Amino acid sequence: MSRWQPNARGRLEQAALELYRERGFDQTTVTEIAERAGLTERTFFTFFRYFADKREVLFWGQENLRELYVRIITSAPDSAAPIDAVAAALEAAAPVFRERHALARQRQAVIAANPGLQERELLKRALLASAMADALRRRGVTDPTASLAAEVGVIAFGTAFARWVDDPHEQDLARLIRQVLDQLKAAMAGTGS
Amino acid sequence: MSRWQPNARGRLEQAALELYRERGFDQTTVTEIAERAGLTERTFFTFFRYFADKREVLFWGQENLRELYVRIITSAPDSAAPIDAVAAALEAAAPVFRERHALARQRQAVIAANPGLQERELLKRALLASAMADALRRRGVTDPTASLAAEVGVIAFGTAFARWVDDPHEQDLARLIRQVLDQLKAAMAGTGS
Repeated sequence: MSRWQPNARGRLEQAALELYRERGFDQTTVTEIAERAGLTERTFFTFFRYFADKREVLFWGQENLRELYVRIITSAPDSAAPIDAVAAALEAAAPVFRERHALARQRQAVIAANPGLQERELLKRALLASAMADALRRRGVTDPTASLAAEVGVIAFGTAFARWVDDPHEQDLARLIRQVLDQLKAAMAGTGS
Repeated sequence: MSRWQPNARGRLEQAALELYRERGFDQTTVTEIAERAGLTERTFFTFFRYFADKREVLFWGQENLRELYVRIITSAPDSAAPIDAVAAALEAAAPVFRERHALARQRQAVIAANPGLQERELLKRALLASAMADALRRRGVTDPTASLAAEVGVIAFGTAFARWVDDPHEQDLARLIRQVLDQLKAAMAGTGS
């Protein structure tokens, strides 16, 4: 009795985000998500085929992001400065979010409303930074440059992403990332030594 | 029957850190901390006079740090660039940690061993960044410069602090902060535009 469900993951994700916003994250059950997704049968089990738990609906994409970042940093030309390898990785991730602007808005609102989810988001970002720093170290970049370039990259991406999410005109995310990196460079320029 | 206990806060903190390392944070009770601290009477209640709960033993200092950061940023000369106001705040915090090197080492080890505490640490750092960004905005600094300068400051402090904690010779923390800010500036210089 197990029929294929077209785009089950996407429907579960959309249903979960709607319910988290309507009722709050803590008040929503997996059964309710499965029902709202309208998958015809065995939907409770279908949920766990795609997501480890209801929190992971909000964070599943970050593993893909980490792999992409690491791949781009690893394959950057030898001559690329650490921050340029990081910038290339962040820009390469931008197309992943095309078609996901409305979902991203809902997700940010859900996380903003729940301190536990905010802590989770910060931990996931720290893990992204740590993976990028490791990739830089494998290129021979020493610390603290490796960890600083990676952490600055995560800040730049987070700032650009927040701006993109808030923008009803949905500017190009890659362009926003480049802008924020330039602004960061300008902001650092004040430092006396 | 309530006698004054000399340096009760410091003794409770030291006892808590020892127990968190020996038994793990989750396995330690407030009663055990109070006993280990050897305060003569009513020690269980004494604990709650100084700390909201056993987690706050690890994080109570960050509120003082936030007030100090905000005060220094607010009182920086009008001509100071945002990143310089942030740098002045970070350096002003350095003397707070003098005499606390051994405690800081124990604290880092406890947090490193517990993912829940790591999330808490990241949230506290995000709150520090947010307070610094607010202080910069009140000086007329616009976004994203305000938030970028504040977040970069928190990264620089965290990097310098981790290096200071690991250093058996206990270098001057303010000097390490300046070094890391210079390294950050150098790391950003790679960015093509």
